[in-house]
Amino acid sequence: MISYHARWVIPISAPPIEYGTVVVDDGRIARVGARPRATNGQWAHDGTEVDLGDALLMPGLVNVHTHLDLTVMRGFLEDLEFTQWIRRLTEAKRTVLDRDRLLDSARLGLVEGVCHGITTYADTCDSAVAHDAMVEAGVRGITYQEVFGPDPARCTESLEELKSRVAALRSRETPLVKVGVSPHAPYSVSDALFAAVARYARQDTLPVAIHIAESEAERVLVEDGDGPFAARLRQRGIGVAPRARSSIELLRNAGILDVRTLLIHCVRVDSGDIADIARSRSAVAHCPVSNAKLGHGTSPLLDLLAAGVTVGIGSDSVASNNRMDLLGEARSAILSQRARVGRHDVLCARDALSLATIDGARALGLDREIGSLEPGKSADLAAFPLDSRVMPVHDPEAAAIFALPGVPASLVTVAGRELVRDGRLIKADLALAGRVEVAARALRDWSGA
Amino acid sequence: MISYHARWVIPISAPPIEYGTVVVDDGRIARVGARPRATNGQWAHDGTEVDLGDALLMPGLVNVHTHLDLTVMRGFLEDLEFTQWIRRLTEAKRTVLDRDRLLDSARLGLVEGVCHGITTYADTCDSAVAHDAMVEAGVRGITYQEVFGPDPARCTESLEELKSRVAALRSRETPLVKVGVSPHAPYSVSDALFAAVARYARQDTLPVAIHIAESEAERVLVEDGDGPFAARLRQRGIGVAPRARSSIELLRNAGILDVRTLLIHCVRVDSGDIADIARSRSAVAHCPVSNAKLGHGTSPLLDLLAAGVTVGIGSDSVASNNRMDLLGEARSAILSQRARVGRHDVLCARDALSLATIDGARALGLDREIGSLEPGKSADLAAFPLDSRVMPVHDPEAAAIFALPGVPASLVTVAGRELVRDGRLIKADLALAGRVEVAARALRDWSGA
Repeated sequence: MISYHARWVIPISAPPIEYGTVVVDDGRIARVGARPRATNGQWAHDGTEVDLGDALLMPGLVNVHTHLDLTVMRGFLEDLEFTQWIRRLTEAKRTVLDRDRLLDSARLGLVEGVCHGITTYADTCDSAVAHDAMVEAGVRGITYQEVFGPDPARCTESLEELKSRVAALRSRETPLVKVGVSPHAPYSVSDALFAAVARYARQDTLPVAIHIAESEAERVLVEDGDGPFAARLRQRGIGVAPRARSSIELLRNAGILDVRTLLIHCVRVDSGDIADIARSRSAVAHCPVSNAKLGHGTSPLLDLLAAGVTVGIGSDSVASNNRMDLLGEARSAILSQRARVGRHDVLCARDALSLATIDGARALGLDREIGSLEPGKSADLAAFPLDSRVMPVHDPEAAAIFALPGVPASLVTVAGRELVRDGRLIKADLALAGRVEVAARALRDWSGA
Repeated sequence: MISYHARWVIPISAPPIEYGTVVVDDGRIARVGARPRATNGQWAHDGTEVDLGDALLMPGLVNVHTHLDLTVMRGFLEDLEFTQWIRRLTEAKRTVLDRDRLLDSARLGLVEGVCHGITTYADTCDSAVAHDAMVEAGVRGITYQEVFGPDPARCTESLEELKSRVAALRSRETPLVKVGVSPHAPYSVSDALFAAVARYARQDTLPVAIHIAESEAERVLVEDGDGPFAARLRQRGIGVAPRARSSIELLRNAGILDVRTLLIHCVRVDSGDIADIARSRSAVAHCPVSNAKLGHGTSPLLDLLAAGVTVGIGSDSVASNNRMDLLGEARSAILSQRARVGRHDVLCARDALSLATIDGARALGLDREIGSLEPGKSADLAAFPLDSRVMPVHDPEAAAIFALPGVPASLVTVAGRELVRDGRLIKADLALAGRVEVAARALRDWSGA
């Protein structure tokens, strides 16, 4: 049993508590409330205690969209047009990054994420390295095995390969890290493959994640059978025709909108799409920084929320962001929505904190386990120091979202196990930076060649 | 003579230099270039050297709009409608914050700003505390003495008070901190007072800063003589009528658009306004986070730049932001513009770095002295560590803008004097946090009463 005391505790499920305590017993939260005082008014002392001091203690953050294996590409592909960006990214990865380098890249991503208080990751990956890195680091999450296959003639082949990869991954599942599947996106997956993966996911109760309604290039491909993606597919001898009224309708027609689906991006959705998403009970991974930086625009997040859709916050890869800082991402969600609608009173700090914690947990089907500080839930915690750069704290929720982004966590625990203590990563791999540097240099050499 | 070595030097006026050196002599930059090597290929050693290691060394950042004295209000006025926000802010300040508290508040703002590598501040203030705090902290900048006066009948009185305050301030001018004037905004300053201040500023060659074209409430007041600002003015017995086609036209008519004027905000400007601004050679202080958070929207920054207007980046006060992190502010400028126009290739990291340094310097008329690393310029420097949260660095300009925001500077110098060394503030006031905490509590007590 261990008691964590902090100047502010934000349970999410209840209002902030000044001078609060979270008691952890055997990996679970046993009590959340005011810090106990003795009869003389002094702090009571009982058992193992950690006084975090002037800090803000909250549930570990939930990042509902990452590509951990792309961390080595931070800043590598600046200012490229989206279809060129994807093409360069794929080529560089295939040519330069072997499994060891990708694994190190994922490890480095987790160093950044854990330092920023992120305890749960929903990662899409084709090489399984993210899964292994997450298990090794002691974090929680879902690793979605990616599948590609734009050619309907090769649908069965793609599905079989997916199944064998998932089988291998599932043998490495742990209580913390589970496996899902990700048919990548409409420009890389045929309608037939979407439908086949839907049947498979339903049968094997696998969660699903799909990149959807992200770019103008995707929209033109789906609605008109035209644009840069269509041109590339035709080059590869794959027939292209208009596929649906919208990307969301495409998924609905393929039967993959309602299988515990996580819809990543949803920038280009209209009111009909939003109604379909709400009816399907699929969830949305909102990635405001990546969407803005790549020039895709701003998702109608407020409309999704008004329709009752569950939305979590995702950083996307650092190849498009270029950081993994979920409080900052939630702040960007507020700023972009307020700028979009010209209002000061929409999406307040409290709402954004929910998106980054309990709503993200709900999007991943993990809300009974994590996302808020409540007795019985897993002790996934993050604490952030309130130093002179963020003080004074009139409003701890506003402090968390607007002032704290980028400040490293002083404490991070997953299921009660401390990953960060006193601002330091407990299991640091001191040779990691050097190995990533070598891989990064190989990328630049390839790029310059 | 002292040599600062860093893995990356970003001179702004030239491409980034890997393994670079900046030599400082008597407060000025003597040399910028590759780190010298001896004939055996090892680093050469000569005189006093500071090896910043894996760090990015650049010109000190230029924040073209702050209200340092409002730092104690960080997170104090969340989610209020703009006119109510201003009213509460003004009341709280007048009632609770005496000069000592405001001075401490400004000092705390400088702690945050200096830690984030900001060496130059353009601050608007009515109580002169920002000036004194800036002189004390050893930073550079302009303090614009604010003047209010919506009643044209009291124009002379307001002008006389301004003159006496400016005279007092000018006696405390230093080589680093100069004085200007700021007729606050159209809703708090009459056309007559704008015109009078313009004549005074021209006569005494004082730089001018004005909050302009910010809110919908201001627009309605100026164009229609209507809205919440009009209602309050009428309550005070001040006549209100439509004043101009736009806020920028109002300034032009008052003769105050072209007196070395810094136009703060410019969210609501059309193509005619932008042409007027460009012709007047006034500069713009772009404050994307404050504008978004308060629900004002997104400034047409790209159009201003295309018209040749000089634009710098401002954080505004932490009462509306809630932080002072200029690299993050520049990142927000990129994200908001790209989201606005739906393009990936506008306002790249290099452009944003210029906005936060040399363009800000130009906006303040200081570009011959600061804003880039060039021999002869003042040694105003900021270095940021490239730790595992921001690595690898494929592109140092992208790293500075997209990955580094919020990472505290490891070195900060102004005119060669070190304010931060090894990530620590050299002249830290250890009792400051406690005093600000008392003032913050007084604000909350007043608010709850």
